[in-house]
Amino acid sequence: MNLAPMEISVEQSAREEDITARVLESFKRTDNDRLKAVMSSLVLHLHAFMREMRVTEKEWQAAIRFLTEAGEISNDKRHEFVLASDVLGASMQMITINNEAYSDTTEATVLGPFFVEGAPLIENGGDIASGASGEPCWVEGRVTDTDGNSLAGARLEVWEADDDGFYDVQKDGGEHMSARAYLFTDEHGEYRFWGLTPTPYPIPCDGPVGQLLSAADRSPYRAPHLHFLVSASGKRTLITHIFVAGDPLLKSDAVFGVRDSLIKDFSRQPAGAPTPDERDLGNQTWTRVRFDIILPPLHR
Amino acid sequence: MNLAPMEISVEQSAREEDITARVLESFKRTDNDRLKAVMSSLVLHLHAFMREMRVTEKEWQAAIRFLTEAGEISNDKRHEFVLASDVLGASMQMITINNEAYSDTTEATVLGPFFVEGAPLIENGGDIASGASGEPCWVEGRVTDTDGNSLAGARLEVWEADDDGFYDVQKDGGEHMSARAYLFTDEHGEYRFWGLTPTPYPIPCDGPVGQLLSAADRSPYRAPHLHFLVSASGKRTLITHIFVAGDPLLKSDAVFGVRDSLIKDFSRQPAGAPTPDERDLGNQTWTRVRFDIILPPLHR
Repeated sequence: MNLAPMEISVEQSAREEDITARVLESFKRTDNDRLKAVMSSLVLHLHAFMREMRVTEKEWQAAIRFLTEAGEISNDKRHEFVLASDVLGASMQMITINNEAYSDTTEATVLGPFFVEGAPLIENGGDIASGASGEPCWVEGRVTDTDGNSLAGARLEVWEADDDGFYDVQKDGGEHMSARAYLFTDEHGEYRFWGLTPTPYPIPCDGPVGQLLSAADRSPYRAPHLHFLVSASGKRTLITHIFVAGDPLLKSDAVFGVRDSLIKDFSRQPAGAPTPDERDLGNQTWTRVRFDIILPPLHR
Repeated sequence: MNLAPMEISVEQSAREEDITARVLESFKRTDNDRLKAVMSSLVLHLHAFMREMRVTEKEWQAAIRFLTEAGEISNDKRHEFVLASDVLGASMQMITINNEAYSDTTEATVLGPFFVEGAPLIENGGDIASGASGEPCWVEGRVTDTDGNSLAGARLEVWEADDDGFYDVQKDGGEHMSARAYLFTDEHGEYRFWGLTPTPYPIPCDGPVGQLLSAADRSPYRAPHLHFLVSASGKRTLITHIFVAGDPLLKSDAVFGVRDSLIKDFSRQPAGAPTPDERDLGNQTWTRVRFDIILPPLHR
């Protein structure tokens, strides 16, 4: 196949440019300056992409079909357009744009499609599993501001997949919440809870996003991770994960969410090793990880 | 509001470029060269758009919501993603790219969201209305190749809105087809049928595309038109409309479909004026229009 740019006549080029010009013109009367700027940039890039690629009718129909099928498979628990944004790196680009590096604050990463409202509250030191299966993982850390001051009463919401690779919302009609909870830091800014050692899982592949990844020979697997959403009064809210050091999927995360600073040592403990809260885990191994979190001020 | 580009630090710019580079890298193993090229260009333009605009989290959420709502309102008779493509001029750009001007062949324009399979066959000279209301319009013309040879047996499919501005699929659950039919040219390449004088109508505005047009102070109105889909053996299939000369909406067509060569004189006839087929229209006016069609060869 010849991938070199086609020769386009001056007349043909003018016809194509004329369409773009007419669309830009149609936004000339838009009162909202920001909307006008965003739509104009979108139109310019969209048309430039189509012209550069000489997009065919069949390809455009396939694009419309992709969007239509993404709509059909979406519901309040399945967010196919978020997935599409994730696998195109658009979510991570948006996050990077909106979380400019500030001092040595904790880095952000994608929210992902599995955050849902209404997670249960647990005590500091409690267990988020609520029936989800997996190797227990003791998670602890301290939440501070950029001067190192402890943030007491900071709110942490955490969620993760079970060891079959499924979030609660993907199971049993999503009625029962599990491996999902929120808690608050104590007076020293410290938090601790029992979660599950993160395991790899593929993003949902039975929709158009999965078909795209398959057609592109891309892996649907996410590097194992545990989600955090951390907020405190007067601080910028942080949406992030921690990742498991040494995991082979760190280099090929399907949604480009990995940042070096978020890779943590999940230290595996032998069965019978004493637990931080003297909980008896019987004859099973467990892991422990520390994640200290620094939140930037709301306004810089 | 300050629309000037923000100052981006070298470090921040590198972080943003790194995301794009990682996404491009993920398509490196894609076997399908065309898919790889298209996805790479899409990713480059998408990320460039987001970075240039410094797209915010709220705006990105609004974009995801737009797509999700477009999916929710879509069904087999409502094609919101086609509408979105139309109002962004993407449909017309795709058509322009794929219908390079060739000799003096008839120009193409958008298919629109109201084409459906299964239109009824009518005799040459028949009536497409089938109950749709409107002023009768006699449409006739000749289909030829680029050398002026008549194309006998060419297939013309035509469809249009009624004088309330609705297509059949928008009415009564879309069960009854009206103002929609196909016919064949006679041995001289000529065709003729009774249709309706086209009237203006807004594209469907009760979905996210309508909300976008409203927010952008853009008119949802289409310039009055009659759709044609014309095919003949060995010829490139033509998808086009004809527009009504003198109509004030020609300059602001919501989907950028108007081309000068497709604007035709719909000549209004007084009530009682003799009709071409001696049909008695009683005490009403009617119009007549001629549309000669030149199809290019399939392969140039």
